[in-house]
Amino acid sequence: MLATVIHAARDIRVEEVPDPELSTGGDAIVRVVAACVCGSDLWPYRGVTPTHEPHRIGHEFVGVVESVGPEVAAVKPGDFVIAPFYVCDGTCANCRNGVSTSCLAGSWWGGDDRVGGVADGGQGERVRVPLADGTLFVVPGPVADDEVPGLLALSDVMGTGHHAAVSAGVGPGDSVAVVGDGAVGLCAIIAAKRLGATTIVAMSRHADRQALAREFGATHIVEERGDEGVARVRELTGGIGADRVLECVGTRESMDQALRSTRPGGMVGYVGAPNGGPELPVRTMFNRNIGVNGGVAPVRGYIGELLPDVRSGAIRPGRVFDLELPLADAAEAYAAMDERRAIKVLLRP
Amino acid sequence: MLATVIHAARDIRVEEVPDPELSTGGDAIVRVVAACVCGSDLWPYRGVTPTHEPHRIGHEFVGVVESVGPEVAAVKPGDFVIAPFYVCDGTCANCRNGVSTSCLAGSWWGGDDRVGGVADGGQGERVRVPLADGTLFVVPGPVADDEVPGLLALSDVMGTGHHAAVSAGVGPGDSVAVVGDGAVGLCAIIAAKRLGATTIVAMSRHADRQALAREFGATHIVEERGDEGVARVRELTGGIGADRVLECVGTRESMDQALRSTRPGGMVGYVGAPNGGPELPVRTMFNRNIGVNGGVAPVRGYIGELLPDVRSGAIRPGRVFDLELPLADAAEAYAAMDERRAIKVLLRP
Repeated sequence: MLATVIHAARDIRVEEVPDPELSTGGDAIVRVVAACVCGSDLWPYRGVTPTHEPHRIGHEFVGVVESVGPEVAAVKPGDFVIAPFYVCDGTCANCRNGVSTSCLAGSWWGGDDRVGGVADGGQGERVRVPLADGTLFVVPGPVADDEVPGLLALSDVMGTGHHAAVSAGVGPGDSVAVVGDGAVGLCAIIAAKRLGATTIVAMSRHADRQALAREFGATHIVEERGDEGVARVRELTGGIGADRVLECVGTRESMDQALRSTRPGGMVGYVGAPNGGPELPVRTMFNRNIGVNGGVAPVRGYIGELLPDVRSGAIRPGRVFDLELPLADAAEAYAAMDERRAIKVLLRP
Repeated sequence: MLATVIHAARDIRVEEVPDPELSTGGDAIVRVVAACVCGSDLWPYRGVTPTHEPHRIGHEFVGVVESVGPEVAAVKPGDFVIAPFYVCDGTCANCRNGVSTSCLAGSWWGGDDRVGGVADGGQGERVRVPLADGTLFVVPGPVADDEVPGLLALSDVMGTGHHAAVSAGVGPGDSVAVVGDGAVGLCAIIAAKRLGATTIVAMSRHADRQALAREFGATHIVEERGDEGVARVRELTGGIGADRVLECVGTRESMDQALRSTRPGGMVGYVGAPNGGPELPVRTMFNRNIGVNGGVAPVRGYIGELLPDVRSGAIRPGRVFDLELPLADAAEAYAAMDERRAIKVLLRP
């Protein structure tokens, strides 16, 4: 079959690789209907994370189950499934606590799966899914083709934006500022509105993303950064800052922007993977009672809550996919996102 | 009148100072019935915080109102009042949000009060209280002398321990670890039990404090620190760490202990004033979804909730005072706390 392999920075190839085979008894083979490129895939693409040897890449996909091992009970051939961006058993203490990204038996796509060898990456024609019962979420009934982008968003970005909002404690009537206008930041706007926020400030400088932010529920756009950005957010929030700030980037500057844009007693929900820092300024947090909560989003547990709203059209996270390419053009998908020609690219095997 | 003045590190004197006078219209004069020494008072005492010139000290007291300005409505002469460790108006946006320590008109005992000059310190015979309506909490009815320690605890340590627990989101059935066995840590144990925690691990190495921790509701004592301390907490919490960890010290080591003792998806509630750091390790927090929430405790807003339980004897935070001295012996009070001969010292003018 064909799958995407990263060989080095800016060297993405779609290559012939061995077909996956069932091996552990608890796994499933899924034919990928759609996959996508994540902002975090750009780190190795850009060389920020070194690539020591060629390896499979991609961790967001939806598809149809082709076969299952004898121990699999919750998934059967023919099911349309959403795979979260990680593998989890759904039964360990951490999964039961809602933190399936810390599953005690868990693993990551493209890495050592801890039970059957190396897991496939998500950007390929097929994927062997370890711990299929815990990992895969079955979408009931027939799935229309135009539903695919929205369902694919549930594999990562929509659940991650939701995690930012949940971690920050967004509730009815809150004022919320969102730092970051990538796919996750835009989904965080959807999540904030869905949870009842009434003032939603999107911090964005790109006209196309501003338009999508407004479509998703942003009530205000702030283009300024740094001190001016903080001042603008305060102007829009009674002079004190936003109740909740959703940090969806992961840089020192974005976290600083988030902390300073939060009102005393407010909370930053953060899901932007901090790439080598920054450490958090505890004295600033302490003096103003600014909390920081979040992390790698346990999206598997959010699919059940979010799916009905996606299928009904109440929320439309699939709109973040503004470019669709065949799997064979994966290299161009990476380039388009790297060069900001696309917010997020959907790949069709 | 007599009041406590710090002249330099380890130089605490009780001196004659001018009697306070009403000045702003909204202030009150309170005759101090009892005051106390705070762990944070030990920073200037030890020279960790420099003392550039002699100044009044102390920020926890209870007393009886002697006179009030013409604009004061909620407090009248003869009222027994609890003063929180700061001045607040109770009406600004931050106070209404429950963060009265960030009051837009607020100030600190012994510092510039922003309306009438320099505020008195709490360790004296009398105190002029700016913004009396917002700052003082009236204790109804006659107050028995043996109630004084419990009421005094509401001026800081009990509300601060409660803030750690509230910030961490302690709820029924939770496992909680408390880092720090000072008066605040001990009050955090009271708070955790009161909010329904069923496993409460006190990290303490002192026999007398361990005994009080158990009296307050600790179900387990852990004497180990560092890796061994983390391992012991995990043993007591199903192998994954405590749901909530209350950090009541403020050092790099104590915060590290707290973060590592928390289970994935759990929360650290912290109230130990971070003295010059440490910055928080965001990648560790991110990977395990460990939240950090808390800060300088808005205890004024907690008095109403906690007072009935203190007066009924349901909780007994006044037990943290294990030494009582006349105000004239304030220097000895500081020495006793500095040398750990006392947990917390109550001063009687």
